[in-house]
This record gives sequence, C-alpha cells and structure tokens, in this order.
Amino acid sequence: MGQMRGKASLAFEKPPVIISSGSVAGTKEGQGPLGHFFDRVEEDDMMGEASWELAESAMQRQAARIALKKAGLFPADVRYAFAGDLLGQLIATSFGNLDLAVPLFGLYGACSTMGESMGLGAMAVAGGFADRVLAMASSHFATAEKQFRFPLAYGNQRPLSATWTVTGCGALIIAGEQKENALRSGKGAAGNRSALARITGITTGRLVDVGARDSMNMGAAMAPAAFHTIEQNLEDFQVDEHWYDKIITGDLGEVGHRILLDMMKEKGRDLSSILMDCGIEIYDKEKQDTHAGGSGCGCSAVTLCACILPKLRDGTWKRVLFVPTGALLSTVSFNEGQTIPSIAHGVVLERV
Amino acid sequence: MGQMRGKASLAFEKPPVIISSGSVAGTKEGQGPLGHFFDRVEEDDMMGEASWELAESAMQRQAARIALKKAGLFPADVRYAFAGDLLGQLIATSFGNLDLAVPLFGLYGACSTMGESMGLGAMAVAGGFADRVLAMASSHFATAEKQFRFPLAYGNQRPLSATWTVTGCGALIIAGEQKENALRSGKGAAGNRSALARITGITTGRLVDVGARDSMNMGAAMAPAAFHTIEQNLEDFQVDEHWYDKIITGDLGEVGHRILLDMMKEKGRDLSSILMDCGIEIYDKEKQDTHAGGSGCGCSAVTLCACILPKLRDGTWKRVLFVPTGALLSTVSFNEGQTIPSIAHGVVLERV
Repeated sequence: MGQMRGKASLAFEKPPVIISSGSVAGTKEGQGPLGHFFDRVEEDDMMGEASWELAESAMQRQAARIALKKAGLFPADVRYAFAGDLLGQLIATSFGNLDLAVPLFGLYGACSTMGESMGLGAMAVAGGFADRVLAMASSHFATAEKQFRFPLAYGNQRPLSATWTVTGCGALIIAGEQKENALRSGKGAAGNRSALARITGITTGRLVDVGARDSMNMGAAMAPAAFHTIEQNLEDFQVDEHWYDKIITGDLGEVGHRILLDMMKEKGRDLSSILMDCGIEIYDKEKQDTHAGGSGCGCSAVTLCACILPKLRDGTWKRVLFVPTGALLSTVSFNEGQTIPSIAHGVVLERV
Repeated sequence: MGQMRGKASLAFEKPPVIISSGSVAGTKEGQGPLGHFFDRVEEDDMMGEASWELAESAMQRQAARIALKKAGLFPADVRYAFAGDLLGQLIATSFGNLDLAVPLFGLYGACSTMGESMGLGAMAVAGGFADRVLAMASSHFATAEKQFRFPLAYGNQRPLSATWTVTGCGALIIAGEQKENALRSGKGAAGNRSALARITGITTGRLVDVGARDSMNMGAAMAPAAFHTIEQNLEDFQVDEHWYDKIITGDLGEVGHRILLDMMKEKGRDLSSILMDCGIEIYDKEKQDTHAGGSGCGCSAVTLCACILPKLRDGTWKRVLFVPTGALLSTVSFNEGQTIPSIAHGVVLERV
C-alpha cells in the first residue's frame, strides 16, 4: 500500500506508460500553431455527419482508432475505455464508443476530463486490473456553444475574457511497462515504437468554489482549482515547483493564467518560466480572434498529444505536471444563479 | 495480475468491504414498500432548498454524511469520492460534494452509475490506492423530469411503459478488509459494526444499442445491456446463474424485466426465481401509480442500501449480482432522432 502520497496523490510503484496517442482536430485548430502536429485535421467540422453531436462522436471514434493503430492494437486488446465529453449525459462519448465495444467508464469532469481519465486509467493498469486501457476526451465548438451558450446562428458576441471551445479529441493507450516492453520486442511495426511517456503519479482534485458566476470568464473560476491541485501535488510529493520542467494547465486562457501566476506569486512561487496553458498554446492570439484562448476537454487532450508528449519523448522536458481544469456549470445551474465550482486533476508525466 | 477474469471482469484477491451505507429518499419512496428501511425520508422533496437541483445536491450531502457517521469517520478519512447523477454536467454531484472537500471522480453512466462508482471504488481500494472511498449516486423525480421530459407544471401524461424517477441518494463507504478489521477492533461505537458485504468482483459493461428510440420505454432499451453484462459475468467467472442467490437489475421496471426474462429463456436460462429489479421493488404498483416502476440512479442506489445489503448481512442471501442499468440518451440526442444506447455494470456482492 505504499503508493499513496499525502492527502490526494499517488506515486505509482510500477508507472504505467503511454504507448500511443491519437489526436483529431477541427479546421480552426488545424490553422493554429499546433496544426501540423495533430494526427488528423478535419476539413469540415461536421465530419460528414448529420449533426454537430454526431461529428463529435466521429472524432472520438477516429482518435481512438488512430491511437490503437499506432500501437498495433485492435479494440479487443484494450480492457477498458475511460472517456468523457462536455455534453449533457455524455452523448458524444456514448455514440463515439459504440463501435469499439470496449467496457466503458463514462466520466465527467468538464474540461478536466482528460486528467480524470488518465488518472483512473493509470490506476487500472498499475493495480493489475488491465493490461491496456484507452483514455480519451473530446469537445466540439458547435456542440458546446449550443449546450452552454447560444445557438451559433444567433451570431452572439463574446467578451474578451471568454474562451473558444476547441474542436478536437485526444486519445491515449496506457499500458503496463512490462507489456510495453513485450510489444517493443515483439509484434510488427508498431512494436518498435518506444513509449511516449510514463505516468509516475497523479493528484486528484477536489471541488473548489470561490463564488465565480461569470460563465464568460471561466478562467477566473478555474484558476483557484488549478492552484489548489498544484499546491497539493507539491505538498504531497514534498517537492517544489522546480521539480518540474513545466507545469501545464488545461484551458485557463489568458485571464486564468494570469490569475494563477498571481496566486502563486503570493505564495512565494515564481512560475513565470514554468507555467504553460494548453488554451494559450493552441491558437494564434493575433490572427485567430479567439479572445482569451482555447477551452473544452479537447483542448488539453489534443495539446497533450500534439505538443506535450512529443517534447517528453524527444527529451526537451524530463518531467511535467499536466493539470487539466474544469468549470462545473450547466445552463440549469447558471440560470438558477448558482456559482461555478471548479476542479483540476494533476498527472505527473516523465520521460521514459 | 491474477485478478482479471475473461473479457470484462475482475475477481478481487483481497475483496474490498462495504463498511457502511447511507440512504436518503423522497416522500413517495418513503410511502412505498421499502419506506421503513431508508435512513432518512424527506417530508418535502425540496428539502428546504431553493430549487429541485439544490435539493438533489442536499440529498447527496446527507447520504454521504450518514454513511460516514455510521462508520465513525470524518470526510477526511475518505480518500476519494466516486459520484454521479443524471443531470447535464452532473450539477447535483458538483454542488452535493462541495462541503465534503474529498478528491472527486465525477461519473456518468445514467442509471448504471451506482455500479460504475462501486466498481471504480472497489478497484481503488483493492489496488492499494485508497484505504476508504465513498461511492454514491442520486436522482430526483423533479430534476429528471425537467431534464429529460417536461416541466412538472405541464401535468404531462405518461404511457404505462414509462417509469417514475426515484427521488433518492445512496452512499457507501468501501474499505480494505484489513482496515475494516482494524475499525472493528478499535475506535468507538462504529468500530463494532461488522461490514455489510464484500465486493468480490465486478463486470464492467460495454455500450449496447439495439435501436430503441422510445424514451418512454427505457426498460426495453436497457434490458439487452443487462442481458449482455449478466451473460458476460457468467462467462468470465465460468459459473451459471445458480451461483447467485439473486441477480438484481437496477431499474428495468415491469417491461424491461419481462424482456430480460424472455431473452434469458431463449438462452436456456430460467431466471424467474432469481431475477429481481430494484425499480419493481421500490414502489407499490397497485397503490402508487408509478406505471412500469421506478428508475434513476437513485433507484438502485437506495434499494441497495435499504434492501440488498441488509439481506446479505443477515444471511438471507450469500451472493448476489447487482446490475444497475443505464439508458444513455439526452434531450439533444433524442430530439435529433438518435437511438438510445444502454450500459449495465455488474457488481458481485457476497456475505462477509
């Protein structure tokens, strides 16, 4: 039982490894700075489907297939899928995972879902409950606008603090280290690929509510949750921020990023050279008119696949703390005047 | 790695134990056959709150507190909460777990959520990732009607195949066996309580879609998912149905129950004396006008606490398969003409 650290963290004795990833992104994301690094960029955000929601499901299907193919695996080689999205009753996930026919744990952590799925997936592998699992999260600009804000056809204006929901899906195959070695020495082309990164630990977030109520400024609502999870991680592992080459939040955007830097500064930590945010990386602020940046569970998921894992693999970074953040509101809670509780799940990723 | 069984099941080498439960039910549920066995029955389904949604959150808070109190524990003694509900973006869970301040994994499996939370909770404990966890699911008639059907004020009529969403929340504390013994020999009154049941295995469901489209007959949509998970369980554990004293589905109701019995009969299994459904048990069909029975994640969750665990504890049953079932639709998917995929998660419960 020696894997628990402090109040909310785990250090895996045999760290699970990420053996492959699949990323599918929308048109706008393809035109951004990370465009060339996605496995697939859609030319049409409807993806040939009859509705935005089915398009998002199609992205989940494709991202999973790409990750499986890169690892030389069939769906039946994966024991569990841990997946989620932003939509009510997770319909993108339910329809997106039908064909895979893999036992499914449906997850909701708003935009923190990729961190949640990686945490639970890593636990399943590290606990000996699965040889390999799929961890996946998606979002789609059009489904999210319809779900949380206004129909696109209204042409509604948005304040500068608002973020742009990323159209994208990221999928990972997480495996036990032994299995990964067996794959490498063994079967076929995919077997020669080395793993992308190890998941050496996780810090599971708790709900944080600072009374934020502005759904057009979710960065401000989520920054305190990111702060809490990062502090908890450093405390639980008894390290300081310099243990990490980068601390990478999910989708705080410009406003939330600045708030988090300020909160950390008050705590005596200067994170200015370490802190990065997927929501800021994914779009070109000057050219793409995305205001405060990108958001949605797909934001951190595709940035992980296209930017973070490659930099761990090529040795640019040795250890990063990946912290997707989620704002837990719905139109019902918002219209009833409730606050926006937030949550952030931390995943410690290390070079293999 | 000796815990995996067949395609989709786990047999825990050191089975986690359920050390306590808390159940909170609404007025109508309190008037039903299980009324006397709930820990708390609300006199007013608003629970003194300003909205139905906040009332559902209040039920989660109360059920968790009751389960903790019975075990002699504080929230900080629990490492993770695994919780979910039926509402878009899980708002009942987000607001219901705020005060607990326990690291949270938000789950969505529609009415199968209690099975999902118990499965993941048991994995966390059996894997050595937690000493104790909270597993919880809730539903509320009024929040669910608003979310999935029509505002209550419309006084909408319902066909006989429709079920009545249960107002209720069930919460469990799951712990490692060693810890449980330590509690028993140790501290205070709660320490003397013996455990309610052991979780010896799980079978995680996959998505099943038979093309059902009638949101007023969810039993018919879910029966095939229950069938699939039960068959998978029997195959994975290499047993037949008589290994169980009871096989207990979540909320198939009269229609789904009958379909499942027929499907099993075609497979050569006569489950008529073994199969039970929480949705049928929770209301008095003759007197309560609930049509096909009860449904919602709270249905199986409170029936588990009020009826199933006590019968395992007093030795009436030695081993049961608990199979909550979920219909994965949303108003968006329904209005877009989609089918209703379903899922069922099996949990093997045995007498301590």
